[in-house]
Amino acid sequence: MLHTVLPHEIGFPVEPPPGPACAPGEFPIALVAPHHGHLGGMAAGLVGSGANVRWILPDDEPHARKLSDTLCARYPEARVARCLDEILDDPETRLVCGADITARRAELGIRVMEAGKDYFTDKGPMTTLAQLTAVREAVDRTGRKYYCYYCERLASECSILAGELIRQGAIGRVVHVIGMGPHRLGPPESRPDWFFRKADYGGILCDIAAHQCEQFLTYAGVETADIISARVANVAHPDFPELEDFGEASMVAPNGASFQFRVDWLTPDALHTWGDGRIFILGTEGTIELRKYIDVATDYGDNRLYLFNQKHEVNVQAKGTCGTPFFARFIRDCLDRTETAMTQAHVFAAAELGLRCQLLADQARAAQ
Amino acid sequence: MLHTVLPHEIGFPVEPPPGPACAPGEFPIALVAPHHGHLGGMAAGLVGSGANVRWILPDDEPHARKLSDTLCARYPEARVARCLDEILDDPETRLVCGADITARRAELGIRVMEAGKDYFTDKGPMTTLAQLTAVREAVDRTGRKYYCYYCERLASECSILAGELIRQGAIGRVVHVIGMGPHRLGPPESRPDWFFRKADYGGILCDIAAHQCEQFLTYAGVETADIISARVANVAHPDFPELEDFGEASMVAPNGASFQFRVDWLTPDALHTWGDGRIFILGTEGTIELRKYIDVATDYGDNRLYLFNQKHEVNVQAKGTCGTPFFARFIRDCLDRTETAMTQAHVFAAAELGLRCQLLADQARAAQ
Repeated sequence: MLHTVLPHEIGFPVEPPPGPACAPGEFPIALVAPHHGHLGGMAAGLVGSGANVRWILPDDEPHARKLSDTLCARYPEARVARCLDEILDDPETRLVCGADITARRAELGIRVMEAGKDYFTDKGPMTTLAQLTAVREAVDRTGRKYYCYYCERLASECSILAGELIRQGAIGRVVHVIGMGPHRLGPPESRPDWFFRKADYGGILCDIAAHQCEQFLTYAGVETADIISARVANVAHPDFPELEDFGEASMVAPNGASFQFRVDWLTPDALHTWGDGRIFILGTEGTIELRKYIDVATDYGDNRLYLFNQKHEVNVQAKGTCGTPFFARFIRDCLDRTETAMTQAHVFAAAELGLRCQLLADQARAAQ
Repeated sequence: MLHTVLPHEIGFPVEPPPGPACAPGEFPIALVAPHHGHLGGMAAGLVGSGANVRWILPDDEPHARKLSDTLCARYPEARVARCLDEILDDPETRLVCGADITARRAELGIRVMEAGKDYFTDKGPMTTLAQLTAVREAVDRTGRKYYCYYCERLASECSILAGELIRQGAIGRVVHVIGMGPHRLGPPESRPDWFFRKADYGGILCDIAAHQCEQFLTYAGVETADIISARVANVAHPDFPELEDFGEASMVAPNGASFQFRVDWLTPDALHTWGDGRIFILGTEGTIELRKYIDVATDYGDNRLYLFNQKHEVNVQAKGTCGTPFFARFIRDCLDRTETAMTQAHVFAAAELGLRCQLLADQARAAQ
């Protein structure tokens, strides 16, 4: 008895993933600042939904060069830009996608928006509250979008399905969320220098916990929360004193829903993926557990959603159900000037929570 | 490929459970104050390790009467006591086991210890810090034991196995623990009145979170922690305003290990056991996950331990391996005046953490 079901088999029909959001050539994008592999995922998601890669801006830093070479090979139709201005001066380009060094993401985005284009950045979308303020002002001033690739939900089909099940009442009112965001560090030489410099990456809560905050806001159906506690530490990497390999925080939203999470860079060698990312969503009428990237020591693969409520105790196959509609909706939003994929306010709310968690943790550590 | 293994198959040999701790008749116990079904588990564990039930003290409260009738039927060799003094005056009785209304557990225990006997109470072992102080003084004064049935670890084979794997270095140094203690409330009429009276049960953190605190102290290898945050709420039971159906807290131990947990009375109908109790133990070299009472939507049953570290990613069968040696050791400790099962200091440390969490949460709620 392995209670494996599809969502509609237990009464939760879901929309299939949307098709291409636009006609071929209607949504040209540029890929710049290739300092994190997420840029590849951002491009793949958008291209899969109808975008075309018009520009790639390589970078000479060795890790970035490797990524831009990969992207150039993957998108041979793209032009190789000589500089950012060449892209910003191109009236055809609608969206600039960047995975810059985290501390530079805001500056890049403001420049992009001031050139009249929308911006899509890897997470964390910035490293300081001052940058957030400047970005908010730039969005108001330019009318452009500053969006962030919160891929731990947006590119995770079970995470999208969880939101849909909650919307359909599968677990009642959301009471509490637990998030686990473990990551594999890998060999240090596989990482660029900036990965280990706090001023550049901004701290573990500013960085990978931005995903956590975004998920909580979404599942709890809120746009803010009071941070109760936040901590960071380096527990296992004395050779990299500025690396925070562990972080945790807790918060409570105005509707009473609360959140506890941890993030870390401690995934050990034998796990057959980069991290056992989990989310537990406790509702008044049931619980959803997401096993996002692996269902440990099984052959299920990724994207399993476990649900138990007043009627069911089931292992739900998310893969091949609702897809990850963010990309198609985001393309439409850029073309139509709407906010169907996500609101700009939500992008900033998640970022702000991550930044405020980091600030609280930094203050606590400084006071030690 | 279901990576199901026994501990020794991945290099972690464990001692088999101990046999009877004493000769027949050498360890007579009494069962009193049958206000919680845990009394049955306490008796079963001790009898399974060599104790004999010498006395049962019934109670006229209907729920308690039902339990004492069950116990009398199960242990027909036991004498039915007319009053507590009849038991306390019996020089043969070594240990008095009680599951009184929580607020009365300390008073009962002090009376037992002053009669020269050891005391074994259901959790939480008391409801106030003043009671804890009085109990500590009574232990010092009488030289007797005041122990608590922290069954979410002591009666859970996978939880015992987790401690053994940590001791053998399976996950390196413990960095963080997440605990989930969901419980099914069941029909309100299945619960005695005191279950819904805060002054009697003491609050959800004082009550079921005592288990959580005990587990954290054990796995982190510490005897104290600084509480960072604590919250309680009634989210789904407006008809029982004094019931706290949700609680959460976080804490950090002096060795840097930290803990986040939630407890609740929200287990929905369709889950095929009373609660999906989980523990996640993150170490510098690996992670242990306990699925204590159920492995949701599988046929594995209870007591599964998932481990991934630098060498393995496995589903470990705990059942039938190390057993639950607490009971045998505790009997020996009572006979030999040792502390091999658990120290008295540990019993109190866990209780104190639960009480302090409750106090912090109560203060926060009162300030709202």
